[in-house]
Amino acid sequence: MPLTDEQRAEIEASRRSPTTTSRPTVPALEALLFTPIERLDHGFIRVVDYMGDDGAVVQAARVSYGRGTKKVSEDTGLIRYLMRHRHSTPFEMCEIKFHVKLPVFVARQWIRHRMANVNEYSARYSILDREFYLPTPEQISAQSQSNRQGRAEVLSPDKAAEVLALLRRDATQCYDAYERLLDPDQYGLARELARMNLTLNTYTQWYWKIDLHNLLHFVSLRADPHAQYEIRVYAEAILDVLRAWVPVTCAAFEEYRLGAFTFSAGMIRVLQRQLAGEAVTQPESGLSRREWDEMQAALRAPTPAP
Amino acid sequence: MPLTDEQRAEIEASRRSPTTTSRPTVPALEALLFTPIERLDHGFIRVVDYMGDDGAVVQAARVSYGRGTKKVSEDTGLIRYLMRHRHSTPFEMCEIKFHVKLPVFVARQWIRHRMANVNEYSARYSILDREFYLPTPEQISAQSQSNRQGRAEVLSPDKAAEVLALLRRDATQCYDAYERLLDPDQYGLARELARMNLTLNTYTQWYWKIDLHNLLHFVSLRADPHAQYEIRVYAEAILDVLRAWVPVTCAAFEEYRLGAFTFSAGMIRVLQRQLAGEAVTQPESGLSRREWDEMQAALRAPTPAP
Amino acid sequence: MPLTDEQRAEIEASRRSPTTTSRPTVPALEALLFTPIERLDHGFIRVVDYMGDDGAVVQAARVSYGRGTKKVSEDTGLIRYLMRHRHSTPFEMCEIKFHVKLPVFVARQWIRHRMANVNEYSARYSILDREFYLPTPEQISAQSQSNRQGRAEVLSPDKAAEVLALLRRDATQCYDAYERLLDPDQYGLARELARMNLTLNTYTQWYWKIDLHNLLHFVSLRADPHAQYEIRVYAEAILDVLRAWVPVTCAAFEEYRLGAFTFSAGMIRVLQRQLAGEAVTQPESGLSRREWDEMQAALRAPTPAP
Amino acid sequence: MPLTDEQRAEIEASRRSPTTTSRPTVPALEALLFTPIERLDHGFIRVVDYMGDDGAVVQAARVSYGRGTKKVSEDTGLIRYLMRHRHSTPFEMCEIKFHVKLPVFVARQWIRHRMANVNEYSARYSILDREFYLPTPEQISAQSQSNRQGRAEVLSPDKAAEVLALLRRDATQCYDAYERLLDPDQYGLARELARMNLTLNTYTQWYWKIDLHNLLHFVSLRADPHAQYEIRVYAEAILDVLRAWVPVTCAAFEEYRLGAFTFSAGMIRVLQRQLAGEAVTQPESGLSRREWDEMQAALRAPTPAP
Repeated sequence: MPLTDEQRAEIEASRRSPTTTSRPTVPALEALLFTPIERLDHGFIRVVDYMGDDGAVVQAARVSYGRGTKKVSEDTGLIRYLMRHRHSTPFEMCEIKFHVKLPVFVARQWIRHRMANVNEYSARYSILDREFYLPTPEQISAQSQSNRQGRAEVLSPDKAAEVLALLRRDATQCYDAYERLLDPDQYGLARELARMNLTLNTYTQWYWKIDLHNLLHFVSLRADPHAQYEIRVYAEAILDVLRAWVPVTCAAFEEYRLGAFTFSAGMIRVLQRQLAGEAVTQPESGLSRREWDEMQAALRAPTPAP
Repeated sequence: MPLTDEQRAEIEASRRSPTTTSRPTVPALEALLFTPIERLDHGFIRVVDYMGDDGAVVQAARVSYGRGTKKVSEDTGLIRYLMRHRHSTPFEMCEIKFHVKLPVFVARQWIRHRMANVNEYSARYSILDREFYLPTPEQISAQSQSNRQGRAEVLSPDKAAEVLALLRRDATQCYDAYERLLDPDQYGLARELARMNLTLNTYTQWYWKIDLHNLLHFVSLRADPHAQYEIRVYAEAILDVLRAWVPVTCAAFEEYRLGAFTFSAGMIRVLQRQLAGEAVTQPESGLSRREWDEMQAALRAPTPAP
Repeated sequence: MPLTDEQRAEIEASRRSPTTTSRPTVPALEALLFTPIERLDHGFIRVVDYMGDDGAVVQAARVSYGRGTKKVSEDTGLIRYLMRHRHSTPFEMCEIKFHVKLPVFVARQWIRHRMANVNEYSARYSILDREFYLPTPEQISAQSQSNRQGRAEVLSPDKAAEVLALLRRDATQCYDAYERLLDPDQYGLARELARMNLTLNTYTQWYWKIDLHNLLHFVSLRADPHAQYEIRVYAEAILDVLRAWVPVTCAAFEEYRLGAFTFSAGMIRVLQRQLAGEAVTQPESGLSRREWDEMQAALRAPTPAP
Repeated sequence: MPLTDEQRAEIEASRRSPTTTSRPTVPALEALLFTPIERLDHGFIRVVDYMGDDGAVVQAARVSYGRGTKKVSEDTGLIRYLMRHRHSTPFEMCEIKFHVKLPVFVARQWIRHRMANVNEYSARYSILDREFYLPTPEQISAQSQSNRQGRAEVLSPDKAAEVLALLRRDATQCYDAYERLLDPDQYGLARELARMNLTLNTYTQWYWKIDLHNLLHFVSLRADPHAQYEIRVYAEAILDVLRAWVPVTCAAFEEYRLGAFTFSAGMIRVLQRQLAGEAVTQPESGLSRREWDEMQAALRAPTPAP
């Protein structure tokens, strides 16, 4: 239950009185405006504003006077060409703004994307709510041995329950102390100091604004299977937003970026030999074990249908 | 006459069918949308899209759920506080997109503002029009002797006419050769090469998108009296756009930035002595001649009425 | 005791075998290289590399072929001019790299400066040490009533001791649980999950690289008396580094930025009246109470001697 | 002859008195320091300062206390891993500064890379030299018909001579007029105005500073065969600098970026069918004609030996 009734009422009020505009609008995105897409146990992401559409990409690439004077098929072809050849500036011409609620440890990964604008709820100025992330049992996994920054199998139900109990106990005790520290009748400690007692799974929130090019870059990194689950669920929500907002751009992105794989010079040499009918094995491929495995995985992967 | 009939028709078509939106809209800016604000002899700047309004600044600063739940006076106070104390991130939450037509030598100054998105008309790909900037006689001024990057008095009408004739002759001859170089029946030279024969007053155009914080920074530098006239006229047009778009922010900007002056530590020491009744002269002020003059000018300047 | 013996040995090894270079070097900064400047109870900041000096600012401003062909007095005058008139690009031509150890809640403020390069120690990949920030009793202060994001008076020794005990208890318990969660013989939980149980005063560390212009901006915001004490101590350490590295630039920075004050249009009107001999009171000054107080404080402040 | 004797003397003076430093140094790059690498008829690029080396990439990725405590083979493996998986931040930890002399139309392409620091020689403040780019006859090529922004076959010697004569005539006439406009005995026109009469092949110069990650991105775009020849020659010079400065990083860059090719989802489907022994033709490949050709070209290309 990430929102209070009061917050829901504020959100509802935002959509009450639509106005007219001559700007490009996207009905499918208007339908999503303001509504929280819930993620994790208390988090959400919601679109609060946007600028531009697929046509704006085309318009900027052509530096044209009006809005889309060409045929739809030509516009689609142009967008696909721009995406394939990494012409990034036309995609910078669309902009979107989100309101996100997320655990602090996720926020710390997220903020590493510098090409965005952020206003975070300030715990120097305000008091954070008693809300902290507790994973579902299916997410409580062991450390991977093969990938130092990954997860392996899920813990047994008993172990998972113990882990959860520990996480809950500490977050609760820390928040209780936070409240006592702030309480003017007990310590009245400065907010900027008291916050240091909170755990990293405490929820924070921010307004986050970014252009379409940089958003696609964010999604390509954070919707990746190697990204931590707790940020990936937000990236996947953004991918759904992209499909509604800029369907042509998003399809090109899935074809040329998400579903693509970059073969190194050495991998291309292997491909050349294989396509010429030669049977190549890893030891004589010139590739390291790890590269070889990555290449085989890419060639095995089912790729989205056309 | 910066636009052709066809271009005007394309622009008109853009505003024909307004749609409804739940996003913040600004009627005063909608009225300006798409229409070229003409500058110099063939240039213009026109707003093609925007995101946010004064309320979006407040909303981001408060990380609030709805749109402006506080009173107007409180919102104004907050915006003025943010501007005075250089809290820049809330102003980054508004975005605007322009289509600009401008001489190449102006474009080269403009592009130095890196925190913006740009798509320029490509002379590798397309052919530039026969349009070049020729100053009006009142702008044909001598080199300043006191300011190495400034202008002094206007040349005499006779001299100015000769200057204009030279500029017109060379731009015309260069463009004529450009056309001959491109002409498949003469040389059919690659566009990316032929363009090098054009003069720096040739007009180019681009889509330019920027957030409000960085736009204010641009205006504070380029609407300054020390900026070159040919870019200042665009900055002043943008200032008019700002007054329509974000009137509260723009008033705060004029009060705390455009109309303000930063007194150095040494200047403050002089002020302290003067306010204590002491008559201070430059030689015993501790300020250089130049600093002294800058300080006196700031104190003499009429400042905008409250 | 922020460093282990092994770490000190690694640092010592770095300075053992100096080499020769034709690049600009700054002996006063070489003397500081690698050595941790200790801050807070376990933190530090140390310079690990740098590029350029005062001469590099001058060289770039002049786009000259050699290194400083002008007299020292002219170079100083140029740097002061550039600083006064906010010509930022020449200062971008110097670069410095720090290794910083700091509490997570400080890191979260720090990272908001986007124009820098950062590599942070990864708690997805590695295990954080048992180190958390505990303020000294003189820093344990009450919430300010006048400034919502500030501190007021220090708590009584008894109260401060209780606050410290709470902070220590929770950070310790959380870290104990973190270790148990990670322990393969207990839970073997993935590192990327276990870290969420740590408190926000846990120490992290990063490599941070930034150009001189952006570093001055950082210092002007974070060495300010309104900045939180726990980040201000780092900013003040950087200010000392600046004095060693670029003494001319740093002096200009203290004169025109740190020791300066920006008077708004309305404040300049008040100054004009006061300098003309008029006694002006706040109610008829046209300034808000807050602006009036800020102006009076600026005029009362002792400013650094010439 | 891009440099005067005086300029060469200034450059020589820079390398005369090497000093000692504890910073990482790269002897192979020290040997290149300051010396102009000549490009085009009057241009050059020269390294004027640098920070870091291959070890600095490793050090930042590990956030380690000393310099390279691991074995060389592990460091190489780490750099290759970082490059393959597009971990960009460790490469941002190296920085380099160039002094570049280049034609204005090349500078206009170059400046589109925003993540760099630039100080350009100011034609508002100073007077440009009589130097303009004239292509060699082998570079005077016809417009490509298949690629709207490319060149096709070289013009005949006669045609090329005529093109050159036109370019020389116009640049010369424009520069002659520029001098007359500036001459105080004739017009004494402000420099900021007179410069508009110059052609786009006039040489300008700047100091350009950039981190290694962004420099690799620049090279990957501008050393590409599709880049315009006149900027590619500079990118290739930078590639030589990279080989001297960061040999391990540069080799990884050539393997995983320059020599690599990104296969789209559709191309991977084709590969899968081909590797399974199926003969696939373009019409039933699901790829457009253009994509098909790009894929075939990638598979035919000789790739650098291991």
